[in-house]
Order: sequence, then structure tokens, then C-alpha cells
Amino acid sequence: MEMKLYNYYRSSASYRVRIALALKGVEYDYLPVHLLNGGGEQFQQDYRQLNPQSLVPTLVVGDQAISQSLAIIEFLEESIAEPPLLPADAIARAKVRAFALHLACDIQPLVNLRVQKYLKAHVGADQGHVSQWLTHWMSLGLKSLEKQLGALPQCDFCFDDEPGMADIFLVPQIFSAKRFNVEITPYHRLSSVYENCLNHEAFKKAAPEVQPDSEG
Amino acid sequence: MEMKLYNYYRSSASYRVRIALALKGVEYDYLPVHLLNGGGEQFQQDYRQLNPQSLVPTLVVGDQAISQSLAIIEFLEESIAEPPLLPADAIARAKVRAFALHLACDIQPLVNLRVQKYLKAHVGADQGHVSQWLTHWMSLGLKSLEKQLGALPQCDFCFDDEPGMADIFLVPQIFSAKRFNVEITPYHRLSSVYENCLNHEAFKKAAPEVQPDSEG
Repeated sequence: MEMKLYNYYRSSASYRVRIALALKGVEYDYLPVHLLNGGGEQFQQDYRQLNPQSLVPTLVVGDQAISQSLAIIEFLEESIAEPPLLPADAIARAKVRAFALHLACDIQPLVNLRVQKYLKAHVGADQGHVSQWLTHWMSLGLKSLEKQLGALPQCDFCFDDEPGMADIFLVPQIFSAKRFNVEITPYHRLSSVYENCLNHEAFKKAAPEVQPDSEG
Repeated sequence: MEMKLYNYYRSSASYRVRIALALKGVEYDYLPVHLLNGGGEQFQQDYRQLNPQSLVPTLVVGDQAISQSLAIIEFLEESIAEPPLLPADAIARAKVRAFALHLACDIQPLVNLRVQKYLKAHVGADQGHVSQWLTHWMSLGLKSLEKQLGALPQCDFCFDDEPGMADIFLVPQIFSAKRFNVEITPYHRLSSVYENCLNHEAFKKAAPEVQPDSEG
């Protein structure tokens, strides 16, 4: 299965998919889409054909384009059995998905670039309001995720001693929180999972700073 | 399998899960959580134990609580085979999931109650800013979804002649758009799917206005 990934090194949704591809051991063509250059390459006509939302990432498999990071990751999970990114039991799968969805729905969409731009351009927010906004939504979410993990038996990653879907969604959000100076030290369990992930080969391969379009 | 659904008649994430339960023919106990009464029943200690995010819905299966509407719906899909909410082919499944995730990640989280409240309380937005905000994010998303469906062969529901996961996520968002006076007439295909859904028994059973906690 030949795959191409349109993505941006620093986008957290792109980062999730790179981690999943690395965990599944998939080689792929890396096609950078710069979200800031020339008003944003994601708005160019060619890319809009692939992704009508003008968002990254897009995974192209043969002649089919798949958007939305979680849809891509569920596709990889269904197409490539090993290693599994979800547990086998239905209730356990639901809990891991809920953790990932908390990050995917209730944190990331509120703090991404297009929302920051809209707040400044149309709601009259200044940089102080935007920083406060980012801190509020990230801290609210991370605090709740920390509490959830705290109720589980200790393990190396979120739900297990091997990384899976929850870790794939957590790491890019912590990366983003650190970038925007949101304090993560109160979240002991999340911080420990994050450190373990950064030492894992697949996560190293997927890291923003080692991608071809990284600006250092 | 005994199930209880903690939810609120007008919450779009709750509405999604009610549609999925109705499509799968599951009977369940309906437990209302009023999002506005007494500062919000979702913040009460008992409910927080079930759902640390203080969000609705929560599905309780035996002694296990599952949060996040999509995690709940994937659980129902994995546990109850008929009728399927996703197609069989892996690429087709990914496209339906991407459509649902566009609604779940890139529209609903930006327009829900907690965000409207935060904009007014902490960013200095007035009702005009909030209305413009709601219209912007809903219209941007619905326009792109209309374009995606327009490129597909005509059918009664989003992707097929039977309703599935895409329709489950679309209907509550259109309901919400109408409630906030966002114009949906330009979206012919989405409007036609919406009408077909409203005439479907499962969608009728799940509608906000027929729930026990409906305020009419």
C-alpha cells in the first residue's frame, strides 16, 4: 500500500498521524504543506481538491485521499494489525477512544491556529486574551485527563506498557502546551507518559524537529 | 446489556448518541442532566464521578461509564452488528468517519455552550460577536461538507440509502444551526439529507422535542 502524507511539521493533527504511521512501521512520502507561507499553502487550489477543509493532514492511499487525523488512524488500525493501537475488549477500546477524543474534540480545535487568528481579527482579542484562552482550554482538559489516568494502575504509557491511541493524541497536545508556555508540571502522570513517549523510537521518528520542513 | 444514558435533550452530542441507540434498537434508561439549572447539573459531584469532564453524554453499561459521543457510538457499532453504521470497505469507512469527525471536531466544539459563555465572560465578546462566531464556524464547516456530498452520487442519506454515522453527526448540527438562526438553505444536499432523517423512525425517537426533559 503506497502512502503519501500531506502535513506540516508543527501541526498537532499531523504529528498524531506521523506517530501512528511510525508505530505501524509504514514508510510514506512526506509532502509538506506550510500553514503560514504565502497566506497558507493549505488554501491553494491543488490542496483544496484533496482536502476541501483546507486543513492538514491528508493521507493519500493509492488514488484515495483521507482527511481527519482520527479517521486516518482508525484506517491504519483496521488495515495493519500489528502493533494494535487499541485494546481488544470493547469497553476498554471505548475508554481509550474517549481519552483520544477528549484531546481531539475538546482541546485541540479550540487552540489551533485558525481559531487564534479569528479571535484577534473578529472578536477584538489581544495577545493577552489569546494566551489566556489557550491556557484556559488546555489546562481544563489536561487537568481532567490527569485525573482520569490517576485513577488507573500505574503503567509506562496512558493505558498500557505499550503506546497506543491515547498516547498518539496526548503527545502532540503536550508539545503544543509547552510551545505556548502552558504549565504542565502539575500533571505528573501525563508528564511521565510524555517523557516515556519521547524516548520511544516511533515517537522520535515522528517528532516535529526532525521532519524535512522543520524550521528548527 | 443494560444501558443508562445521562444526557440533555438539546445537547447535540447527546442527540447523536440517542440516534445511534435508536438505530441499533437499544432500549435504555434516560437520565436527564440539565446543563443550565442550578449552575449546571453536569458540575455536581455525583455526575463528575461518572464524567470528569462534566460534559454530556455519558453511557453507563453495567458498571462502566463511557464518555465522548463518538467513543460511545463506536462501542455500539462494535457490540451490536445490525444495522451497520459504517460501510464494510476500509477506505469507505475512513471517509464516513472523516465526515463525522469534521462535525465532531471542527464545528461542534467551537459553538457549544461552554465556549459561548467563555467568550462573553473572558474575551469581552457581546451577543453580536457570539452570533457572528457561531455563524462563521457553522457556515464554514457546512459549506465544506455540502461540497463533499455534492461530489458523491445522489442518495437518500449522506453516503448511502440507509442512515449511518455521518447522518448521526449531521442532524444534531443542522438542528443547532437552525436554533441559532444560521442559514442552511444554501446547502441543498445537506438539507435534503436532514429532511429524510427527520422522517426516519429512529431519528424521530431521538429528537430533542420528544425527550422527557424537553422544555418544548
